[in-house]
Amino acid sequence: MRETVQDADDPRLGDYVRLRESSLRRSLESERGLFIAEGEKVIRRAAEAGHVPRSFLLAPRWLAGLDDVLSRWPDVPVYVVDEAVAEQVTGFHVHRGALASFHRADLPGVDALLGLRRLVVLEDVVDHANVGAVLRSAAGLGWDGALLSPRCADPLYRRAVKVSMGAVFALPWTRLPSWRDAPALLAEAGVTTVALTLADDSVDLGEVAGRFGDDDRVAVLLGTEGAGLSAHWSSTATVRARIPMRAGVDSLNVAAAAAIACYALAPSA
Amino acid sequence: MRETVQDADDPRLGDYVRLRESSLRRSLESERGLFIAEGEKVIRRAAEAGHVPRSFLLAPRWLAGLDDVLSRWPDVPVYVVDEAVAEQVTGFHVHRGALASFHRADLPGVDALLGLRRLVVLEDVVDHANVGAVLRSAAGLGWDGALLSPRCADPLYRRAVKVSMGAVFALPWTRLPSWRDAPALLAEAGVTTVALTLADDSVDLGEVAGRFGDDDRVAVLLGTEGAGLSAHWSSTATVRARIPMRAGVDSLNVAAAAAIACYALAPSA
Repeated sequence: MRETVQDADDPRLGDYVRLRESSLRRSLESERGLFIAEGEKVIRRAAEAGHVPRSFLLAPRWLAGLDDVLSRWPDVPVYVVDEAVAEQVTGFHVHRGALASFHRADLPGVDALLGLRRLVVLEDVVDHANVGAVLRSAAGLGWDGALLSPRCADPLYRRAVKVSMGAVFALPWTRLPSWRDAPALLAEAGVTTVALTLADDSVDLGEVAGRFGDDDRVAVLLGTEGAGLSAHWSSTATVRARIPMRAGVDSLNVAAAAAIACYALAPSA
Repeated sequence: MRETVQDADDPRLGDYVRLRESSLRRSLESERGLFIAEGEKVIRRAAEAGHVPRSFLLAPRWLAGLDDVLSRWPDVPVYVVDEAVAEQVTGFHVHRGALASFHRADLPGVDALLGLRRLVVLEDVVDHANVGAVLRSAAGLGWDGALLSPRCADPLYRRAVKVSMGAVFALPWTRLPSWRDAPALLAEAGVTTVALTLADDSVDLGEVAGRFGDDDRVAVLLGTEGAGLSAHWSSTATVRARIPMRAGVDSLNVAAAAAIACYALAPSA
């Protein structure tokens, strides 16, 4: 259902306003129950993962490339705008030329993920790019899912989706209902937890890696930017593991640490 | 030499204007031969690495914390501004409250780095955050230096410096004079090159890792965002290594791939 829109204030474009204003977007997306996908590849991955579009916003030259996706939902509006209008609405130059607004589906229950073999568990990782990067690495390296503490940044926020290259759609993930109860929840489910930390009693990650078989259920716990993992999560984990640091560098970025941990602890198949 | 400045248009603040406008900043910083460090920790690291400040721009509450750094250069101006003026000048809210402008030193010659044991070599990595993240991981994981192709983003650009947490000051790095001649340059210097690529004839990174001793000279080659390593660099490398990908994920982000490669191929001490 193609509709050419020439006025940036047209209410039909309301899902796409001011995409760079993160606090405005957080409340708007939560109220309307939507998320935004940007770029042909990411839109395609959202659709393939079963997400249902509310609308598309496309510059004319992107219509042909997404035709197969658009034709799956003949009743969903496709707003065709020129690039200047797109820029006025979104507040930036949409150089990938294609946006889509999708319905947010309900998240799976935590129980649905606790039986998986390899889980990434994020504690208060607040940067959208970091959350997206961690989920991309986890998916690419054969991990099965991710659990996020209540204060983690939203994996379906546009920037997280973009940095993840759509991996947020492929990798099962959900929110932990409580920060405090997360260690107990994992322990009661029989999951072995590996806290990534530079604590004094942490052992070399390389040494820890040899302990797990492909079928063991292992969760790696990664802490917030700057301060790292909390004492509560770190001290209650089964194992504390470190990536040894040199040259006066305090620590790695959480996305780099996650990539290394997912690589070192990956199942072999 | 403290000078209170109340006018955002004061020419004394010219080093700090419009810090978010990357094309303006590129030409300004190159013309004036400067780079900007942001935040107390990063400013301190630049100074400790031997960089010489041109000036500081500080909100009053940051003066005490940086006093030891400021007192090393009693003749360098310290512009004291309130946060509103800082925001007007730079174009954003400087939440870390402290900026410094440093002289750009000459880069070392490539020859000075070719004798090192572990080198990261970046081909056209154009995103400042990726360059900063790669150098932070390389420094933290015990690598000795980095070589950057001519089109790589500038490691001394504010955002790269910030993401690196100052590792761009600790890790020796320089520009390669030529993209085309880089593989030959490394080969002639007797450096074993490991191209990170998903090419068909690439071998598992884990298998490659066992081949090198601590004293072998090894360079890992990482390609541009999106397209990855060029055929020229990949085909002329000593070894092509892959990080196996799953779940329909095309590839890892270059910073994640670099972290894994630096971890897997790190010297043991």
